[in-house]
Amino acid sequence: MKVLVTIQAVREAVREARKQGRVVGLVPTMGALHQGHLSLVQQACRECSFVIVSIFVNPTQFGPREDFAVYPRSLSADCELLKREQVDVVFAPSVEEMYVPKADTWVEIPSLSRVWEGRFRPGHFRGVCTIVAKLFNIVQPDFAYFGWKDAQQLIIIRKMVEELNYPIVIVGCPTVREKSGLACSSRNVFLSPKERAIAPAIYQSLKIIQDMVKSKGITQAKKLILAARKFLKNYPQIKIQYLAAIELQTLRPVKKVGPGVLIVVAVKLGKVRLIDNLLLT
Amino acid sequence: MKVLVTIQAVREAVREARKQGRVVGLVPTMGALHQGHLSLVQQACRECSFVIVSIFVNPTQFGPREDFAVYPRSLSADCELLKREQVDVVFAPSVEEMYVPKADTWVEIPSLSRVWEGRFRPGHFRGVCTIVAKLFNIVQPDFAYFGWKDAQQLIIIRKMVEELNYPIVIVGCPTVREKSGLACSSRNVFLSPKERAIAPAIYQSLKIIQDMVKSKGITQAKKLILAARKFLKNYPQIKIQYLAAIELQTLRPVKKVGPGVLIVVAVKLGKVRLIDNLLLT
Repeated sequence: MKVLVTIQAVREAVREARKQGRVVGLVPTMGALHQGHLSLVQQACRECSFVIVSIFVNPTQFGPREDFAVYPRSLSADCELLKREQVDVVFAPSVEEMYVPKADTWVEIPSLSRVWEGRFRPGHFRGVCTIVAKLFNIVQPDFAYFGWKDAQQLIIIRKMVEELNYPIVIVGCPTVREKSGLACSSRNVFLSPKERAIAPAIYQSLKIIQDMVKSKGITQAKKLILAARKFLKNYPQIKIQYLAAIELQTLRPVKKVGPGVLIVVAVKLGKVRLIDNLLLT
Repeated sequence: MKVLVTIQAVREAVREARKQGRVVGLVPTMGALHQGHLSLVQQACRECSFVIVSIFVNPTQFGPREDFAVYPRSLSADCELLKREQVDVVFAPSVEEMYVPKADTWVEIPSLSRVWEGRFRPGHFRGVCTIVAKLFNIVQPDFAYFGWKDAQQLIIIRKMVEELNYPIVIVGCPTVREKSGLACSSRNVFLSPKERAIAPAIYQSLKIIQDMVKSKGITQAKKLILAARKFLKNYPQIKIQYLAAIELQTLRPVKKVGPGVLIVVAVKLGKVRLIDNLLLT
């Protein structure tokens, strides 16, 4: 496994792989790898004959009051994990390698970027789209892997790829959860033991909605959301930022839920911001 | 020469050319081809072994009160001209082929897009960057050709390519002029015979500045611009929108001119908007 830090070295590695007729898969990450990332990597390794994992904590997707400076970084541990998965290349560039001074070229989907996560994280998806577009142009993969955990990100990237005509298949991989049901997240390390004990309630609130739909046939979004909110009131440490039933393509709230409706939730638990979601089937 | 109207057909043609080891050049145009376009095509044909010319009047780069509806269109005449140049593929998609309904993914460089042309054409460069990014992703050329006539566009595209890491060389080609000095433009057809007789004054005003620098060593931008403005006052039909000496990279006005400073001008002549520029050497 090669660990490369320059764009040029990555381009050369991909060119060589292409010469050998290999199918190129990209897994963009910010490092601090957990089981969720590894499931993306494993799927990429099953489907592609040349797998690149990028590790880059992208400053442009963090707000000025967000956790860029303290976001967990663990490059050598990450590389150990990726080696075991038989990844071909780790691309771990510096900020200077990825952004020229005063960089000001942006890729954006305004209509999908100002709601839900975007409302609480202005500029976040502009940063995400821009860095992903850059990685796509550097690696030019056949497949790129993103987790359903960040559902709005996945939907936005899919739309960007469609609308900018990137010849890349975007693969969405299921959220990996701890036994407690808590979605794997690099930010879970910031939770205190007490907060970690409470955190599974987030997913439980989504399961409550799923159960009400499945077993009682309730479809009124208002009623379902209310029940989930009521359940979370049992945990006063959890402050809900949003909890909603939305349409997959447009991200607009629905009045009646059904297959293909996504339940999304974002909370603050102490100082840690956590998100989760559940797709109704 | 193939005339293709679908993205898929273009991708297949490029894939075939790549298999043969050909070097791919793209000349993006809006059709209504004149000598300026043909000089781009000729340079592409000299430097590349597979040349694609796109002809697409891109709606997203026209403002609501601009001339999208009446912009000259002459596909069959354009194809005749390109056939003579031994172009390999003409890509002439419909608006529906290029944009999904309610498309909302944009590529933009705010800092360079709101000045000069951008001030008079809000949204113009966002439309340009977006369509060029799309064409780059569809064709994935090695080289792409743009005219110095649209200097701000060329500078913006170069920055976009650098900052989004497109593996494409942007070639800037010199402005082609009529004998009178008037820069070739698809919009020249809108000029009345009287206006056409006056239009060469635009380039003459730039030459006046060049002469003052060359022969008299004057470098004070204010003085030079004033002289050019004074000259254009002889033509009351010409309304100046801007006339300035600017820095190539940043597009910022300079106080002192020197090599690498660009003199840019935009005017309205009757109902026709014309631009021109001159690079000091």
